[in-house]
Amino acid sequence: MAETELTGPDIHHWVDRFSAALDRNDIQAASALFAENGAWRDVLAFTWTIKTCESPGDIHAMLSATLAKIEPRNWRVESGESAAEGWLLFETNVGKCKAYLRLEEGLALTLFTALQDLHEHPEPTGKLRETGLYNDGDKRNWRDRQHAEQASLGEEVQPYVLIVGGGQGGLALGARLKVQNVPTLIVDRHHRSGDQWRARYKSLTLHDPVWYDHMPYLPFPESWPIYTPKDKLGDFLESYAKIMDLNIWNSTEFSAASYNQDRACWNVTVQRDGETIELHPAHLVMAVGNAGFPRKPEFDGASTFAGEQYHSSEFTSGEAFSDKNVVVIGANNSAHDICADLVENGVKPTMIQRSSTLILRGETNSKMARPLYSEEAVEQGLTTERADFLNASMPLRMSEQMQKQMWDHVAVADADFYETLAQVGFQLDFGEDGTGLFMKYLRTGSGYYIDVGASAMVADGRIALKSGVAIERLTSDSVLLSDGTKLPADVIIYATGFGSMEEWVKRLISPEVAERIGKCWGYGSGTRGDPGPWEGELRNMWKPTAQEGLWFHGGNLQQSRFYSRYLALQLKAQYENLEIEVYN
Amino acid sequence: MAETELTGPDIHHWVDRFSAALDRNDIQAASALFAENGAWRDVLAFTWTIKTCESPGDIHAMLSATLAKIEPRNWRVESGESAAEGWLLFETNVGKCKAYLRLEEGLALTLFTALQDLHEHPEPTGKLRETGLYNDGDKRNWRDRQHAEQASLGEEVQPYVLIVGGGQGGLALGARLKVQNVPTLIVDRHHRSGDQWRARYKSLTLHDPVWYDHMPYLPFPESWPIYTPKDKLGDFLESYAKIMDLNIWNSTEFSAASYNQDRACWNVTVQRDGETIELHPAHLVMAVGNAGFPRKPEFDGASTFAGEQYHSSEFTSGEAFSDKNVVVIGANNSAHDICADLVENGVKPTMIQRSSTLILRGETNSKMARPLYSEEAVEQGLTTERADFLNASMPLRMSEQMQKQMWDHVAVADADFYETLAQVGFQLDFGEDGTGLFMKYLRTGSGYYIDVGASAMVADGRIALKSGVAIERLTSDSVLLSDGTKLPADVIIYATGFGSMEEWVKRLISPEVAERIGKCWGYGSGTRGDPGPWEGELRNMWKPTAQEGLWFHGGNLQQSRFYSRYLALQLKAQYENLEIEVYN
Repeated sequence: MAETELTGPDIHHWVDRFSAALDRNDIQAASALFAENGAWRDVLAFTWTIKTCESPGDIHAMLSATLAKIEPRNWRVESGESAAEGWLLFETNVGKCKAYLRLEEGLALTLFTALQDLHEHPEPTGKLRETGLYNDGDKRNWRDRQHAEQASLGEEVQPYVLIVGGGQGGLALGARLKVQNVPTLIVDRHHRSGDQWRARYKSLTLHDPVWYDHMPYLPFPESWPIYTPKDKLGDFLESYAKIMDLNIWNSTEFSAASYNQDRACWNVTVQRDGETIELHPAHLVMAVGNAGFPRKPEFDGASTFAGEQYHSSEFTSGEAFSDKNVVVIGANNSAHDICADLVENGVKPTMIQRSSTLILRGETNSKMARPLYSEEAVEQGLTTERADFLNASMPLRMSEQMQKQMWDHVAVADADFYETLAQVGFQLDFGEDGTGLFMKYLRTGSGYYIDVGASAMVADGRIALKSGVAIERLTSDSVLLSDGTKLPADVIIYATGFGSMEEWVKRLISPEVAERIGKCWGYGSGTRGDPGPWEGELRNMWKPTAQEGLWFHGGNLQQSRFYSRYLALQLKAQYENLEIEVYN
Repeated sequence: MAETELTGPDIHHWVDRFSAALDRNDIQAASALFAENGAWRDVLAFTWTIKTCESPGDIHAMLSATLAKIEPRNWRVESGESAAEGWLLFETNVGKCKAYLRLEEGLALTLFTALQDLHEHPEPTGKLRETGLYNDGDKRNWRDRQHAEQASLGEEVQPYVLIVGGGQGGLALGARLKVQNVPTLIVDRHHRSGDQWRARYKSLTLHDPVWYDHMPYLPFPESWPIYTPKDKLGDFLESYAKIMDLNIWNSTEFSAASYNQDRACWNVTVQRDGETIELHPAHLVMAVGNAGFPRKPEFDGASTFAGEQYHSSEFTSGEAFSDKNVVVIGANNSAHDICADLVENGVKPTMIQRSSTLILRGETNSKMARPLYSEEAVEQGLTTERADFLNASMPLRMSEQMQKQMWDHVAVADADFYETLAQVGFQLDFGEDGTGLFMKYLRTGSGYYIDVGASAMVADGRIALKSGVAIERLTSDSVLLSDGTKLPADVIIYATGFGSMEEWVKRLISPEVAERIGKCWGYGSGTRGDPGPWEGELRNMWKPTAQEGLWFHGGNLQQSRFYSRYLALQLKAQYENLEIEVYN
């Protein structure tokens, strides 16, 4: 284990004082145990939502509203990383909780608390798993029961939860709910589970290393490659759905939904293999992801262009384009990967960079993940679950500061690499406030490329670059740029990203609900694409929204894995009719 | 972790003396460090086979033959369970090795040594895994490469290893060889992977608990039931084959094989979807299991019997027999499970017990597995890999003694349970020398039932029992027993077991090769079905046989998992042309 048993008096002492203050309902004293710049991040344990309180005052207000109902108790130090930080355990009226505490001069700089398991409905895993034997007088074996459930769910039996989207997010949440025995149906428009990934461009692999990407309950084998190829991920997800025994309707389009306030359920319409089916789930989880809905700008003259035009999501391989002039619009992940694929197929594509891009060397990315997600972490006994918890324990404001420092180092360490790009005119940034890739990801989910080879092609000219230009218009056989350049073009590929989650709500539910919900993703950093006010948490993600029964799930594999746990706990609590009061 | 860092002077002291003796080639001194009744079990590290030396003299002989070539070195204590036992590490010319040592009065009572990884060809897992990126100038992505391999293997490219049988054994070995990059093809007669299990009787579950049953690389999720239902296992195995990217020809019958000494490869004939294909693997692994070939006695009058006759492997469910007289011949696992299924379908079957049976309560079985394979073991940080190693570290002679003691306790603890069976005339045994189920399993693989419910039905008469009788003959509508009883019968089910592995060799290769190989399984205990001389290891299993290029793999999921590692290492070493000298 990474932790030693040894813990100095500090965190023990703090926990003793903190729990004593809570016990005597002395909110003032409890709040005073936080540093002025201290923050308390809570996931469900106190607030039944995901919330960061960033001052003693905020903390005071939160405790005033929640303490009496929650009745936290039995606080103890589980293990310490040092005298100044470590793992805590406690309980509430509702369930078992875990926490991670960091002290600075005896006061809490960060406290992260999270509900882990419900007292009355503990997750039936480990010691609590089923026997697999059926002695209930019913003659059906496991297969009979599984078939019956699959045949009835969505027909005679309504799912309690409907998950829209069967990618890694929908499957991870589906698995958690299946284990928790919450009747759940996943609908997905693809023919087979995993086709979300299989259908993408040929050279795609995950850009994060394997240690970051495990699915819940069924980690990748230790022989798994560092960067999972897209088809291999697709195949794994398909097997995952089977092994975890999920109820999935493939080839099913979600076409409309409205909430029935009186009956406290949704009226959902789906088209399954062409047949229209009405569903009435109590909860609707949008797990369609950031990358579900292609965004394609409409340039002047686009209709007159005589060649082929594709969105990046439609591109599979450059094999067909070997003698063509190909223009790729965009300079983020997809644009780079597609250009690299074109180069490998003998094309010299032109990449049009309209605004600056953050580039991160794949190797540097793996190093950044290293303390928590790496072979070294595994060897030190740091489980993925504990790594996720530590990762979540840092509030966003402090993450920004730490990330900025880290990126200052990256700029120096990888200076030669960046110089090769600058020399060909590639416009680089580290985010407008220098906080780097991960904050960009949380703010807008775009604006970067994790380099797995294309940057060298940009630097040495195998990929032609036009940067700092806008598209003026298209002609029948060219792209006219704002600097007057006329680029001959047979094929135009729009690597221009994907629509937002709220756009899905607007299209599939209603503009009114979309308006009520507001923006999804982003945390109010006040930077481009992520306007304030400061929220301190991703908007609407994995937590109650302004629309009853509507939830958002998504993100990369790490977020999917971690937050699916807490979204499942919220849905399980509702399914079991627990009394839930959300603090906002 | 179960181990503490603390270790007393004893195992350190022993290891220092032992390694010093080996270093100065003082075989006498090294052998003298073993107790008179001490034993050294080696898997590949010294002997390139699986061998237990059971006296200082045996050990002296083994070291004399192997020491100079193996050059063991760098012995150290990894961690101690106590001052008297613990884990060792060392290296040889060939690879990294692990050992487990138990001392008694300063001398080795047991030493278990095993080769773990080859120096020159370490398993590419963990830190050594592939990147998943292909920068070799070849435009093919992962899927292209996978498809090409699958299309060519067995056609343009000969497999180095051919595994016959794609059950848990074939798949586990196939996975290890795939990870080790040894070109391997698995042929299996079933239509889909997992059908071996799906096709069996409806109520079947594994009789061992989940912690004992994990496959290599991809453990079951922590939500997995304790006793895996057969279809769930079948589905898991099918997904396993996909996730581990195995090359399998399903619907393929292995029909003949002969060894070509000059070319050092096999001429194998298979029928794949009706097409005859010749294969030329260097190595042939029989992984058809103990339960591949139905054994059905030929009773007098069988051809005149007007009803239905099935072997247990053909039985799927008692649903069709609800108004029938059903006689089940046999009183082991299958007979019990089938009778229970019949009872649940409204039948009152008659079980004919021809010889005594060992019955073990499922709960007691789980308790027996507990120190190594249980949720408690998991909580204490005992990995499956370490549990397997500990399990293998006990030589068979000592296992027999320990098992006998344990079964003496079982007889007392479960006396009431056994009494209920004795009262209805059920003939019980604990093995002819009282050493219990596991030794029976290793000797003959039969003669027992792990009770998951049928024993209560025998005790209360829902299953009628005729015990201590032989079958005299069949008439058109009855079974005549040796005690004169005439049992009316519409259906006869032969729960009479399966043929031996050597029978497969005789049928599929040749009687000559079968003769040369001799018996498979059993260890020469000198009990019924397992004649002496004492071998101290299972005959022909997972180790070199008298026929070059012929190997046997099989057993339960635990054995499959553990020994597939060492069989794969032997095949990898041959594939890489390492110099191998087998000590016999």
